[in-house]
Amino acid sequence: MEATSMIAEIAKRARVAARTLANSTTEQRNQVLLNIADELEKNLDLILTANQQDMAAAKAAGINESLQDRLLLTKERITSMAQAARDIAKLPDPLGRVLVERNLDNGLNLKQKSVPFGVVGMVYEARPNVTVDAAVILIKSGNAALLRGSSTATHSNEVLIKVMKKAIASTKISEEIIQLIPSTDRATATALLTARGLVDLVIPRGSAALIRSVVDEATVPTIETGAGVCHVYVDKSADFDKAIAILINSKCDRPSVCNAAETLLVHQDIVDKFLPLALDALAKSAVTINADAKSKGIADKLNIKANLATEKSWSTEYGTLEINVAQVSDVMAAIEHISKYGTNHTEAIVAEDKDAISLFTTLNDCAAVMVNASTRFTDGGQMGFGAEIGISNQKMHARGPMGLEQMTTTTWIVSGNGQIRE
Amino acid sequence: MEATSMIAEIAKRARVAARTLANSTTEQRNQVLLNIADELEKNLDLILTANQQDMAAAKAAGINESLQDRLLLTKERITSMAQAARDIAKLPDPLGRVLVERNLDNGLNLKQKSVPFGVVGMVYEARPNVTVDAAVILIKSGNAALLRGSSTATHSNEVLIKVMKKAIASTKISEEIIQLIPSTDRATATALLTARGLVDLVIPRGSAALIRSVVDEATVPTIETGAGVCHVYVDKSADFDKAIAILINSKCDRPSVCNAAETLLVHQDIVDKFLPLALDALAKSAVTINADAKSKGIADKLNIKANLATEKSWSTEYGTLEINVAQVSDVMAAIEHISKYGTNHTEAIVAEDKDAISLFTTLNDCAAVMVNASTRFTDGGQMGFGAEIGISNQKMHARGPMGLEQMTTTTWIVSGNGQIRE
Repeated sequence: MEATSMIAEIAKRARVAARTLANSTTEQRNQVLLNIADELEKNLDLILTANQQDMAAAKAAGINESLQDRLLLTKERITSMAQAARDIAKLPDPLGRVLVERNLDNGLNLKQKSVPFGVVGMVYEARPNVTVDAAVILIKSGNAALLRGSSTATHSNEVLIKVMKKAIASTKISEEIIQLIPSTDRATATALLTARGLVDLVIPRGSAALIRSVVDEATVPTIETGAGVCHVYVDKSADFDKAIAILINSKCDRPSVCNAAETLLVHQDIVDKFLPLALDALAKSAVTINADAKSKGIADKLNIKANLATEKSWSTEYGTLEINVAQVSDVMAAIEHISKYGTNHTEAIVAEDKDAISLFTTLNDCAAVMVNASTRFTDGGQMGFGAEIGISNQKMHARGPMGLEQMTTTTWIVSGNGQIRE
Repeated sequence: MEATSMIAEIAKRARVAARTLANSTTEQRNQVLLNIADELEKNLDLILTANQQDMAAAKAAGINESLQDRLLLTKERITSMAQAARDIAKLPDPLGRVLVERNLDNGLNLKQKSVPFGVVGMVYEARPNVTVDAAVILIKSGNAALLRGSSTATHSNEVLIKVMKKAIASTKISEEIIQLIPSTDRATATALLTARGLVDLVIPRGSAALIRSVVDEATVPTIETGAGVCHVYVDKSADFDKAIAILINSKCDRPSVCNAAETLLVHQDIVDKFLPLALDALAKSAVTINADAKSKGIADKLNIKANLATEKSWSTEYGTLEINVAQVSDVMAAIEHISKYGTNHTEAIVAEDKDAISLFTTLNDCAAVMVNASTRFTDGGQMGFGAEIGISNQKMHARGPMGLEQMTTTTWIVSGNGQIRE
């Protein structure tokens, strides 16, 4: 109950502050971002000291190195956060766009305009840079930000918020547009996720477990990000060179991210010719292979180590250098496999045949289909969004990378001269 | 558990059937709609007989007259359902629209295209016309429809589904794109609302209680429709004639619907002049008045009956000829009142002053703002959507009236020539 009223209090203050944003000019919002960039650079030492406290505690607690790396701030990383804020300041204003305009016979003028959500919560893990990235994207899109990071990053987050608040304080915008939610307390997270009517949207960012728990527990609207069991389907019409390059890039470029490939599907007509090339390339890249019986047979002949895939393999998001390999009878069978085991994130087809491409792009129910391109391109930066707050893995509101525009909703402004409904 | 597996079975069949829709042409989908219209008219007697069974049961159960009227089908009502299907067939195809197209420096072509959700559930009450309206909108937008009406309308709904399936059977589309969910069983509704991954979206349509229970219980994505505590704010700069016409139309044209007004807010500078006119017009329209102390004083002097409003009055959606009246100190105070008691549906301002209008349209966080027009215009038909499946009262995905376009999601099609991420 105490947590509930604390969150209600914070959310209400954030909503009042958000009005100063909704009513501000593009220039004023951009100035906030530039000030934040400057203050981050001015307070390098302060931020680094706080981060060293978190790092020391993390080491003492025996937290693994990958997590420690995410927690770590360096001069370069802080400078790069500042630069990101300046880059976002340069992007077009996502607010006030007129998406639809109609003049009706009765003289009414209709405008559908983009407006902020209002109060947006972010729930995330160890990375303190998310504190700044999320705040900057939300401010630019006119939203107040309730930021709930990990307890591991408490000191870093507190200093980053303090520095950003200072940067906002010198403008006409209320500094209460960013609020740090205490991260040590489970009840506070629950209160945030159930603050229906006070919080307009919550975006979880982090591990599959974090996202799942947020989506399950939340009664406020959420945008699910994340889970990606992505496939590369190599059609019988494929150019083999393209296929190998795309396969290796999709799997190996950055195996830990959601748009990395987990399964290779090969058209049965080319299995004997293409699979030896693919298995060899995967083995050379140190990728562990889980194969169906036919593909394992081919690997065995080539003395390439391959495990027999289990039913569980096909739906596993490895996040490491590990991949499933299967043959499929045709493009429709590839679609069936993907529909059964995929997560509707990103699916790639390598093919020269236009009909195969058309069927694959029409029937795959996913955020992005890559035609003769790596799955790794499902990314706000790569797709020209300029900035990204996450990748939506759901169908409502936003699908795929989410930039500034996706952090807005709309309102209809209907202007008349006394019209009433007959 | 039985209900869960039944719903899973139905949803899976619907998803397979939905592929025949996703892969169909605009003409094929329109033909389905035209066939539905024809079959409805051919089977008038069959439908009327089934409806008479439902009506007899409703009368025997002592169901109130307003509900009986919603349940009733007549020759005219069925003809009008058929006509609606023909009208929707004429509307532009919401699928395959290219919403964004970009060519990147690396040669990739990006297209964001509109695609169906997939499997959409509708949960609604007594009105059997929703069975046809929803099916037709969902088919046109490429979605399979899981329809869960009220047990009161069981016979009517069963016949309507049978007739529509017959109409679909003569086309290349699978008739399993429409499925009636048994309505007598509470467990079945729960199974539908928690069929995460099998059902893409559920839209509740009906009473506030129905909507609330769907939103609370669902783990599948939902679009909340409905509740409207709408306000008419009359500024000191208002044209009084426009204000009276808009007030009476907003309150009295159809008090039972969500876009009817529940509260009149009047700028304090014009209370003495405008309120006597407004109270008189409301009294003449037989509207029960709940007023703040100042307004009640004015009513008392005029011998117009007015109750003293309670704290609860301000947040009540009456749905009848009853209204709240309050004075506010200025446009900002009106916004504060609306923010405290409103439901973010539709808010109207009557004003000639451009600054007042600008502030009101900027700071009201709602689906639609009416400037010198009746709140009754928040309606798909009135706003040129052609058809409406409900009015969204939330911020994600769709806000305000929902037509064909709102029943689609998007996918990114990224076309390359072997590009990989460097």
